[in-house]
Order: sequence, then structure tokens, then C-alpha cells
Amino acid sequence: MLRRTPHVLQALLQVIDPALAHATEGGDTFSPFDVVGHLIDGEETDWIPRAMLIRARDTAPFTPYDRFRHRERNRGRTLDSLLDEFARLRATNLELLHAWHLSEAELDLRGEHPTLGAVTLRQLLATWVAHDLGHIAQVARVMAKHYAKDVGPWREFLPVLKDRER
Amino acid sequence: MLRRTPHVLQALLQVIDPALAHATEGGDTFSPFDVVGHLIDGEETDWIPRAMLIRARDTAPFTPYDRFRHRERNRGRTLDSLLDEFARLRATNLELLHAWHLSEAELDLRGEHPTLGAVTLRQLLATWVAHDLGHIAQVARVMAKHYAKDVGPWREFLPVLKDRER
Repeated sequence: MLRRTPHVLQALLQVIDPALAHATEGGDTFSPFDVVGHLIDGEETDWIPRAMLIRARDTAPFTPYDRFRHRERNRGRTLDSLLDEFARLRATNLELLHAWHLSEAELDLRGEHPTLGAVTLRQLLATWVAHDLGHIAQVARVMAKHYAKDVGPWREFLPVLKDRER
Repeated sequence: MLRRTPHVLQALLQVIDPALAHATEGGDTFSPFDVVGHLIDGEETDWIPRAMLIRARDTAPFTPYDRFRHRERNRGRTLDSLLDEFARLRATNLELLHAWHLSEAELDLRGEHPTLGAVTLRQLLATWVAHDLGHIAQVARVMAKHYAKDVGPWREFLPVLKDRER
């Protein structure tokens, strides 16, 4: 699954209209551009660094995920350049993950999440996958809502337009 | 956008585990396999046939979209074969759509939706796009939920796992 995400996002987002790239669901919700930036943060600061701590039997609490680091980091960037960067970072991280040849016993090793407490490496990897999929769903939902007015009376047959209404 | 959907779904779904291909959100909700079947129904019976009626200035009500036609139609099929079929049907339909060279005036032509009443060709095309995106979001959400137990305590940080709870 983790290999698929860059391809899914490229198929959805490469060379899209900037209005769509920066569309949000209001407030400080994420645009597709923000989501790709957030996923880059995950590659650089979260999943693999946390897995490294666990493998090293280091029980220091993980550094909390900074959900808004990307806003400063990616100012002035294009979405296409972020998509390329995400794909490169993900590929490198998956090479590393494979090279570890994780055993069942290692997958059961525990780390310390700053708010959730003890978590296993196995749970971390499953969360990486579910987190990707949640953000793919978010990107598609935000893009669908961009067409909310254009669909006219069909709105009532498109439940995605009402998901996560604020 | 309409060109992107087959690529997005292939990136998400080609050669996935059948358990994931047939996972649902319970009841008669759609699995990824069902979604691709439903999109094929749209290509064969809905979007282009309705657009043809409108272009022909035919004000007979559209045939209602049969939301469960695909269940009989695709019995015994593999998800990969449905993905290929969807991509072929979509490509053919988009060739036709382009060949029409729709004018602004034609986009404002109206048809009669069996329950929604008067709708324009422009709204039909926007709905085709938003419908695709809604179902992409659904596939990603259903797949994320497949990992709901595996994520352990991270569940509370993954709102996608609670979306459309029944």
C-alpha cells in the first residue's frame, strides 16, 4: 500500500488547476497542496524516525508530529514539485524499511507515543498505511466539493459533498 | 478530471489482496470491487446516454441509474479485469465527448431527471466528475477501515476510520 500512494496522488493531482490544488473545506482544513506537504513531513520527521527509535529499543517519547510544519516549509513551491519530492522520499524510506527485514519479534517491539502511550512497531506501520489512505480520501473529497455548485440539483445525490461539513 | 479516474483506481487497486477488494463498511455498502462495477454501469448506462438525450433535445425523463446492476453483471469477475474494462469504457466515452465539441449553448441545454427535474448538460458533466471523486474517496476510506484494528491506539488520531459510521 505504501508504494501506491505517490502514484495515486500523481494521478489525481499532477498539473491540476491551482484553484483546485489550493481548495480547502474552510478554516484551517487542508488543501490538496497541504496534504502533500503534510505527507512529506511524515516521511521526514515521523514514520521512519519513530520506527528507528523503536528498533533501537529507545523508549524516549516520540517527537510529536508537527501538523503545520509544511506551511512554512513549502511556501512558494508548486504542487508538482511537492509530488515529485514526496515520491522520492517515500521510495527511499521504503528501501530502508525493506532492508531492515523486520522479524515478527521486532514488529512487536514497543515505543512510547507522547499522548497514546505504548505502541508497537506493527501498529506504527499499519497507521502509516491508514494515514495515507485517509489523506487520499481527503484529497478526493476536497476536490469533489470544489464542484459543489456546478452540479446543481444533483447535490442531494452526492453524499461526499456533505461529508465533514463544518 | 475524468481522464484521471482510471489511473487513480489502478494505482490504488491493481493486484490488491482480494480481502481488501471485497471489504465494505457493512450492510449493502460498496466494496472497492463494487465501486468499480458501479462506475462501469455509469459509463454504459448513465452519463453518455443521458448527455445524448440532452443533445438530441429529447425531454423524456432519463432512465434511473440502477445502483445495483453491477452485482449480477460482474459475478465471478476479478477486480483487475473490471479496472481494465472501466479504463477502456471511459476512454471511449471521453473520445466521444471531445468529438462533440460542445458549445456554451449546448452546455446549457436541459434534460429531465426522473426525480430532480430539469438539469443542464453542464450540470451533468460536473456531476460525472464529482461522482468519480466521491467514489475515489469512498474506496480510500473503505481501504483505511480495513486497517482499523491494526492501528491499535492510533485509532483516535485517524478520523477517516469514523467517517460514515453506521
